[in-house]
Amino acid sequence: MTTEVLHDLEHSIPGVAFATESAVLSQYSRDQGPVQELIEPLAVVWPESVADVQGVLRWASRSNTAVVPRGAGTGVSGGAHATRNCIILSLEKMNRILDIRPDDELAVVEPGVINADLNEAAKPFGLMYAPDPASYRFSTLGGNVATNAGGLRCAKYGVTRDSVLALDVVLADGTLIHTGHQTFKGVAGYDLTGLFTGSEGTLGVVVGITVRLRYLPADVRTVAAFFPDFRTAAAGVLAVGAARVQPAIMELLDGATMEALDGAHGSDLRTRGGALLLIQTDGFGAEAEAAAVRAVLSELGGTVSSEGSAEAERLVELRRHSRGDDVEHEIRVGEDIAVPRSQLVHYVAELERMAADHDVRLKVVAHAGDGNLHPTFWIDAAEGAAGTARLNAALDESITVALRMGGTITGEHGVGQFKLRWLPQEQQSEVLELQRRIKAVFDPAGILNPGKAI
Amino acid sequence: MTTEVLHDLEHSIPGVAFATESAVLSQYSRDQGPVQELIEPLAVVWPESVADVQGVLRWASRSNTAVVPRGAGTGVSGGAHATRNCIILSLEKMNRILDIRPDDELAVVEPGVINADLNEAAKPFGLMYAPDPASYRFSTLGGNVATNAGGLRCAKYGVTRDSVLALDVVLADGTLIHTGHQTFKGVAGYDLTGLFTGSEGTLGVVVGITVRLRYLPADVRTVAAFFPDFRTAAAGVLAVGAARVQPAIMELLDGATMEALDGAHGSDLRTRGGALLLIQTDGFGAEAEAAAVRAVLSELGGTVSSEGSAEAERLVELRRHSRGDDVEHEIRVGEDIAVPRSQLVHYVAELERMAADHDVRLKVVAHAGDGNLHPTFWIDAAEGAAGTARLNAALDESITVALRMGGTITGEHGVGQFKLRWLPQEQQSEVLELQRRIKAVFDPAGILNPGKAI
Ligand SMILES: Cc1cc2nc3c(=O)[nH]c(=O)nc-3n(C[C@H](O)[C@H](O)[C@H](O)COP(=O)(O)OP(=O)(O)OC[C@H]3O[C@@H](n4cnc5c(N)ncnc54)[C@H](O)[C@@H]3O)c2cc1C
Ligand SMILES: Cc1cc2nc3c(=O)[nH]c(=O)nc-3n(C[C@H](O)[C@H](O)[C@H](O)COP(=O)(O)OP(=O)(O)OC[C@H]3O[C@@H](n4cnc5c(N)ncnc54)[C@H](O)[C@@H]3O)c2cc1C
Repeated sequence: MTTEVLHDLEHSIPGVAFATESAVLSQYSRDQGPVQELIEPLAVVWPESVADVQGVLRWASRSNTAVVPRGAGTGVSGGAHATRNCIILSLEKMNRILDIRPDDELAVVEPGVINADLNEAAKPFGLMYAPDPASYRFSTLGGNVATNAGGLRCAKYGVTRDSVLALDVVLADGTLIHTGHQTFKGVAGYDLTGLFTGSEGTLGVVVGITVRLRYLPADVRTVAAFFPDFRTAAAGVLAVGAARVQPAIMELLDGATMEALDGAHGSDLRTRGGALLLIQTDGFGAEAEAAAVRAVLSELGGTVSSEGSAEAERLVELRRHSRGDDVEHEIRVGEDIAVPRSQLVHYVAELERMAADHDVRLKVVAHAGDGNLHPTFWIDAAEGAAGTARLNAALDESITVALRMGGTITGEHGVGQFKLRWLPQEQQSEVLELQRRIKAVFDPAGILNPGKAI
Repeated sequence: MTTEVLHDLEHSIPGVAFATESAVLSQYSRDQGPVQELIEPLAVVWPESVADVQGVLRWASRSNTAVVPRGAGTGVSGGAHATRNCIILSLEKMNRILDIRPDDELAVVEPGVINADLNEAAKPFGLMYAPDPASYRFSTLGGNVATNAGGLRCAKYGVTRDSVLALDVVLADGTLIHTGHQTFKGVAGYDLTGLFTGSEGTLGVVVGITVRLRYLPADVRTVAAFFPDFRTAAAGVLAVGAARVQPAIMELLDGATMEALDGAHGSDLRTRGGALLLIQTDGFGAEAEAAAVRAVLSELGGTVSSEGSAEAERLVELRRHSRGDDVEHEIRVGEDIAVPRSQLVHYVAELERMAADHDVRLKVVAHAGDGNLHPTFWIDAAEGAAGTARLNAALDESITVALRMGGTITGEHGVGQFKLRWLPQEQQSEVLELQRRIKAVFDPAGILNPGKAI
C-alpha cells in the first residue's frame, strides 16, 4: 500500500522533489522535542511554490494521507514529529524574501525564510523583524508563525502574532486563502490571521507571510547584574517594572545555568553569584533607562555592570546563542511555563523544592520580562525507568503548580505532541471541544498534523 | 407573540432588569453608525452578573430570540443596531473593576467598565490601559474588545487585541468559557481570545476581560506642525518613520477638519496651514525623539511648534475630545479606511478627486502612524435622493480605491451592519464561507447579533 500511495503522489505532483530513503526519513522524522514513539514518515516532500503545496494537499486529501508541515524542525514540543503513515511537508525550499517595503515598514516572505535572514535583509533599511526566538539563526518564519514564537526582545516588542499582518494559507483541500491586511490595522471579519498563528500546522499550511517591521533602535544599552540568589534577582525584575522601565530584553539565569555556561565556555559566572539578570534597553531613551535599571538593581544589592560594559553585551550574546546542551548520558526535558510576573520568585522556589523531592537535577532560565520560564529537569540515563518516572513526576508537578499560580503550560513553544497530556488541566472541556470543532471547519478529514496542538 | 416572549423572559430570568417602554426601546435601538432601517428591539435587558447573562442566553436559545450585545452604543458601524425581533443585552451595569494587580501589570474588569475609568484606576499605580479610542470617556471595555478598537496611542502601543490577555465569554447556549491566560505570553491551543476580539458580538458575549497594563510614560512631549497641504504633511509622517522615531501619537488633520475645529472652538488653525500634524512622543527618550521629529518636520518646510509648546498639547486634547460634529441639515458619513503608510498621500489625493467628481464635501483626519484614515463625506440634507446617491457613489469609490492601494475597508471601527456591502470586495468567498462556518461552531442557531460583522 505504501508504495502505491507514493506512486500516486509522484504521479499527482510531477516535478516536486521528494525522498523515501531511510536516512532522509529518519532525519525528518522528528523535531527537537522529546520523542515518545519514533515514527518514520512515508516520504518527505519539498514544494517550491504555492501551487506545489496546493498539489500536495489535494493529493493528500484524495488519498486521506496525514501531512505534517515542517520548517527547520527546531520545535521543542514535537509539533513536527512524524505521525503514522504521514508525509513530511518541508517548507525549507520556499525561502525567498519576496518584498521589503521600507516606507510601509513591512516585508513579505515565503515560509521557509530563516528568521535571521529576514533581519539581515531588513537591516540596511534601518528596520528589524522583532520576534527573535533564541533559535533565530535556524528557525523559519513559517515555523515561528505556526508556533507563535516568542523570543528575547518580545518583552518590549511582542510575540510573533504581534508582528504578523497577513497570511497566505493552503487549507487541507488545497484551497489557497488570504487572511489579514497589508496595513498595520484592520478589523474586517474575524481575526483568522491570529487563529492560524500558533495553530501548529493543524489548520492549514502557511505559504506566505506579511510581517510588520520595527525600527532598529538608535541606541542599545546592556546591564548585567549578579545576585546572591534567584529570589533577589526576581525581585530585581519587579523593581525594574516599578521604575516603569520597559527593557527590550530581560533574561534571568539561575546558578545551575551559570554553571552550565561556565562548563561550556570556561567562564566564572557561578563564582560571582547565584543568579544573573541580563537587561537590554533600546531606543532614544536607552541610556536613561539603563541608568535607572542600574540604580534600582544596585539598591537591591546586585553587583551591577558599569556603563558600556563589554562583558554585559557578551553575556547577552552568550544567552542568545546558547543552544540546548544535550549530554549523552543524561535525559533532559526543557519546559516552557509562564506565570504572572509576581509569581516568578515563588514558582522558582517551588521548582527547587520539587527537584529535591523527586531527586532530579534542575536549572532555570527565564524570559523574565514576560514571566516565561524555561526550567530544565534532568536525570542520569543510567537510572533507567525509575529515573524516568521521577523525572515525569517532577514535570507533572511543575505543571500543576504553575497552573495553580495562574500560569500556563506553554509560554511560547506550543503544545505540539509532548504537552497534550497537560492541556486538559489548563483548558476546560468546552474549550477543548470548541477547538476540535474549529479544526473540523478547516480540516474536516483531520489530515493536517493529526494529534498535535489541541 | 411579542408579549408571550417577554412574559417568558421575565419568568426565566427573575430579578434581571428589563424595559419595554417605547422611549427606552428607541434609545437603545441604534448606535452612532448610519441607520439603513430603524428597528425597535422587543426589550432591553440589563444583566448584573455572569449568571444573569447566562440566564438571558439560555432563554434566548430556547425561544430562538436574537440577542444584540451592547456596551455604550458609541460604535459607528451599526454593530449595536437592533435587528428584527431582538432583545438588546446592555452590559452597562456590569461595570466593576474587579482587580488591578500592579506587580503582574494587569487588570480584570467587567465588560461595562468605561475605558477612561480603568485608566483612572490604574493611574495611581503608574500604569495605564493603552488602547484609547477617541471615545474613551464613553465607550466600554466590552465594546472595545468586541470591535478590537484602536485609538490615538495605538501607533506605539498596539490595538485592543494587543492588550487583551484573557476573556470570559458566554456562548449562545449560555455556556461560560474562559480563554487566554493571566500571563503576558501563552500559546496553549488556538487563539480564541484573538478570535473573540473584534468579533462584534457575533460569537459570544464578553463578560470578563483581563488586560495587560503598560507603564505611564516618564515623560511626554508634543509637537504640532502646520504644513501648506496634506501632501507635505503626509511626507512628514514618512520622514518621522525614516528618522526611526516611533511616536505614541501621530494624528493628521486636513484643512477642512481644521476649519471645522475653528468653527466649533473659535481657533484660527486654518489660517496657519492646509494640514496639521500632531505628534506625541513618550517615555525616557521622549525629549530626544521630539527633537528629532521637530528637525525632520522643519526641514520639510513645516511650521513646527517650539519645545514644550502648550498649544501643541492643547491641540492634541482638542483632537482627542472632538466628537463627531453632526449638523442637522447635513448628511454625514464617516469612514475608517486603512492603507499602507506610503499610500496615505496618494489616497488623500484620490479622496479629493472623488469629492470633486461626485460633488460632495470632504474632510479627513487620520491616525497617520497606522495609515488609518477617517474621511467624512457629506451633503446637504435638502439635496434629497440625488444627494444621497452621490454620497453613496463617493463612499463606494473611496472603498474601491482603498482596496486597490492594498488597504482595508475598516481599520478599527468594524464592519457592523453598515460595511457589510463592501466586505466581499475585501475578502474572497472562501474566507467569507470559513467565517460563516466558524460562527456556526459558536452559535449554530445564529441568534447572536445576526446580520453583522461577517
Ligand atoms: C536552541 C533553541 C532555542 C529556542 N528558542 C526559542 C525561543 O526563544 N522562543 C520560542 O518561541 N521558541 C524557541 N525555540 C523553539 C523553536 O525554535 C520555535 O518553536 C520555532 O518557531 C520553530 O520553527 P521551525 O521552523 O523550526 O519549525 P518546526 O519545528 O519545523 O515546526 C514547528 C511547528 O510548526 C509547524 N509548521 C512549521 N512550518 C509550518 C508552515 N509553513 N505552515 C504550517 N505549519 C508549520 C510544524 O508542523 C510544527 O507543528 C528554540 C529551539 C531551540 C532548538
Ligand atoms: C466620538 C467617537 C470617537 C470614536 N473614536 C474611535 C477611535 O478612535 N477608535 C476606535 O476604534 N473607535 C472609535 N469610535 C467607535 C466606538 O467608540 C468603538 O467602536 C468602541 O469600541 C465601541 O464601544 P461601545 O462600548 O460603545 O460598544 P457598542 O457601540 O455598544 O458596541 C460595539 C459592538 O460591540 C458589540 N459588543 C458590545 N459589548 C459587547 C460585549 N460585552 N460582548 C460582546 N459584544 C459586545 C456590539 O454588539 C457591537 O457590535 C469612536 C466613536 C465615537 C462616537
